[in-house]
Amino acid sequence: MESLYEQLTNYRDSDACAFHMPGHKRKPCGSSLALSAAYGIDITEIEGFDNLHQPEGILKEAQRSAAALYGAEETFFLVNGSTCGVLAAIAAATGKGDRILMARNCHRSAYHAAFLQELRVSYLYPGVWSDYNIADAVDPLLVKQELDRQRACGEKEAAAVVVTSPTYEGVTSDIAALSDIVHSYGKILIVDEAHGAHFGFHKAFPENAVRQGADLVVHSLHKTLPAMTQTALLHVNGGRVDRERLRRYLRIFQTSSPSYVLMASADTCLRTIKREGAAFWEPMLNERERIADKMGECSHLALIGPPFPKECRMKDMEPGKLVIGAKDGSIDGKRLYDLLRERYHLQMEMAAQRYVVGILTPADTEEGTDRLIQALTEIDREITAGLKKDGKAKKGTEEVDGRREPERTTVPLRAVMTIAKACESPFGISRLEESAGKIAAEFITPYPPGIPFAAPGEELTEEIIARTLACIHQGLNVQGVENNRIRTVRIEGE
Amino acid sequence: MESLYEQLTNYRDSDACAFHMPGHKRKPCGSSLALSAAYGIDITEIEGFDNLHQPEGILKEAQRSAAALYGAEETFFLVNGSTCGVLAAIAAATGKGDRILMARNCHRSAYHAAFLQELRVSYLYPGVWSDYNIADAVDPLLVKQELDRQRACGEKEAAAVVVTSPTYEGVTSDIAALSDIVHSYGKILIVDEAHGAHFGFHKAFPENAVRQGADLVVHSLHKTLPAMTQTALLHVNGGRVDRERLRRYLRIFQTSSPSYVLMASADTCLRTIKREGAAFWEPMLNERERIADKMGECSHLALIGPPFPKECRMKDMEPGKLVIGAKDGSIDGKRLYDLLRERYHLQMEMAAQRYVVGILTPADTEEGTDRLIQALTEIDREITAGLKKDGKAKKGTEEVDGRREPERTTVPLRAVMTIAKACESPFGISRLEESAGKIAAEFITPYPPGIPFAAPGEELTEEIIARTLACIHQGLNVQGVENNRIRTVRIEGE
Repeated sequence: MESLYEQLTNYRDSDACAFHMPGHKRKPCGSSLALSAAYGIDITEIEGFDNLHQPEGILKEAQRSAAALYGAEETFFLVNGSTCGVLAAIAAATGKGDRILMARNCHRSAYHAAFLQELRVSYLYPGVWSDYNIADAVDPLLVKQELDRQRACGEKEAAAVVVTSPTYEGVTSDIAALSDIVHSYGKILIVDEAHGAHFGFHKAFPENAVRQGADLVVHSLHKTLPAMTQTALLHVNGGRVDRERLRRYLRIFQTSSPSYVLMASADTCLRTIKREGAAFWEPMLNERERIADKMGECSHLALIGPPFPKECRMKDMEPGKLVIGAKDGSIDGKRLYDLLRERYHLQMEMAAQRYVVGILTPADTEEGTDRLIQALTEIDREITAGLKKDGKAKKGTEEVDGRREPERTTVPLRAVMTIAKACESPFGISRLEESAGKIAAEFITPYPPGIPFAAPGEELTEEIIARTLACIHQGLNVQGVENNRIRTVRIEGE
Repeated sequence: MESLYEQLTNYRDSDACAFHMPGHKRKPCGSSLALSAAYGIDITEIEGFDNLHQPEGILKEAQRSAAALYGAEETFFLVNGSTCGVLAAIAAATGKGDRILMARNCHRSAYHAAFLQELRVSYLYPGVWSDYNIADAVDPLLVKQELDRQRACGEKEAAAVVVTSPTYEGVTSDIAALSDIVHSYGKILIVDEAHGAHFGFHKAFPENAVRQGADLVVHSLHKTLPAMTQTALLHVNGGRVDRERLRRYLRIFQTSSPSYVLMASADTCLRTIKREGAAFWEPMLNERERIADKMGECSHLALIGPPFPKECRMKDMEPGKLVIGAKDGSIDGKRLYDLLRERYHLQMEMAAQRYVVGILTPADTEEGTDRLIQALTEIDREITAGLKKDGKAKKGTEEVDGRREPERTTVPLRAVMTIAKACESPFGISRLEESAGKIAAEFITPYPPGIPFAAPGEELTEEIIARTLACIHQGLNVQGVENNRIRTVRIEGE
């Protein structure tokens, strides 16, 4: 059967004349050649091209094929990123005012869903591997304890459990164990597997969450697969989720004019993966091995991975992520990121406080990894030389301006009110340094990775303020903070 | 200053090596050349490329320039279509449970916003030009009467007024008059001007809603301008709208990974319009004149426009829309649409019951309009010949299967409960023919144009059911109906 892409190019190359949207009528606009090429296949829902919000033809077929590839009963194409998948999944799985059990390191879209649905949120705080300040896997036992506790004390039980796996750093939770527990309580398990769309396609990767029993799974296609930004999938299995409700929320959170360029990109990507099989992934895995080998020879820098401290739950870090930091704290994440970018023109995905994250995909090349290896080897040598010159074992990060970075806290912030209530309350503007004890009226979120330090309704602590300041100080982007000021809930009488 | 597109191609052509998203790493995927060209400029929020959700660099500049072009204090790029602009505008302008005054012919995204915010909706029913069943402009007097009524009877007043102008058919309301009235009551005016992104750029077009005093205005770029599907703008003016609230909702309803291809397309389009000035629109206006002239010679088909019946409020229909139908009902919309498509390969935007809608933009060509003129002239001759052969003045539409199409009703459906309440109630499945007197639990929406016949919570009437059946019978796409069945609210005891 013709692919969506083929059908679009056939239409482009036909003598069909467009009196429909989009306004470019598939013709170039100015001298922007790259855009013009895309315009050639950018149409609207005309005859023969189906309708994403009520698919009956080529889009239905494309979604069915995606479902088969991942092992889902039903799969939806998303053109507003994983964001709208997470929103729709949580909204479909909960009623207004319900409780939800959510890993604290979920993406902000999960928090936004909680806001829209006025949910009461109980958090699962993953442990932290303190050497690098990396969030650990979600402990299934914690989930069981929390669901037990809710049942025992007779409070409203969570309607659904939401976890992010893998994390930005490639830490994967045991979804099969989580599914068993969550389902034994009759609840819905939602997995934000945005960073794991490649899972299950090679034995080097973990199995995907769909095949491990999750009810709703979100995959970003653009993160780890060769597909355009904003393309994603939402999968659903089993009878726990009201499918019609799910469709309603997808209709709400996605444009009524979805881009055929994005949908063709998603379809082409999935067809390629299906056609190429496991062999598609071999070159990338080889490149990773080369990087790992060379980094094993470094004195300071390391490709972060096993062995983990024995209190860590993570078994491995998935091979699509390159998490690189200094074992001895001799260089911080932002400095390493800047060096790689400015001197070597190697653009990483993100700088965290103690490491950088790069993404490896089948589109990577030998030449690219050669450059990365050379750059990291040089930087490592320079760190050694610098430390010798200083005549002491200077530990870069810790001594910047004499500040010691705070640990990533695992002490929960106290939620004084729901996210929705806090967002709708009167607010004031507070200097960050003076806001301990106040209630956040806005998310405070370092981006990337987009995991809130504080959610609206939570009482701010000295610790969380110090962490926020440290991020800003390191030049990281923290949303919700402007000129060191944040919104806090104004309490009557203040 | 470098345009976003130039900056993206510079990055593409540099020696920068990507260890970031998207996973295609700007390289081709398979043999899909048109996609590959787009991949070359598809990046994520890396250094130097700003962040749409907290813009401080090139995106801030691009948005500022868009604001200047339209006369707004602040303009936001949208990558999830006008849909997310309407959602964010209404959510920002209302609190949970507020009342809103909304034209009945608003796009379903306005209804979705009402659902999410649990709004009580009062509707403005535009008049109908019954010759063609085309919705008229919104009467400012009606708005004044309704706001007066709410104030007089002491019920909760609408927080905002929402109208769609122009409509799918190019009918434009008097926004200046509406602004004056709405503001005199201290309310917010939201204009869904999705189909009027070209307004104000040539004297042949009406002034845009931003310059006519609306507080919030949504423009689709892809509908009438040369920009990619899903690109849109949200403009805000004045002090009535809480800007921070607006930004929050935009962060919620838009992906956290917006596409740079879409944003570059938006920026390139706006730069072109600014550079070319009024001359950009001359060729399109000439083509329209040619079409109008030739259609003036037709016996049955007409380019629908003035003169209007004197009870109509519309002064003109904007020239970007080609609304074509038979003056005498001798051919219905779907048949005309199909003929144009199948025999002449002319793809219209939409078929309504009595007319088709085509979109004219600066990308149209002389050759295209020649083909359209020839096709319409031929069809018109054939209608004449067919009528002669039949030996009677057969009126196509009215006699299909002996059914008489119902008029577009202006009799309001009775809202028994809010949209939100109806959607969350237990429901049953009803055959459409047997659902008069029942309460809709789902939107019933012909798409295009996406204006609900019935909203959840409304009591269905024989009239509205007949209209729905007529649409389905004509082969039009009606969302919310599957196999002639719909969801209705289950009332206790049933």
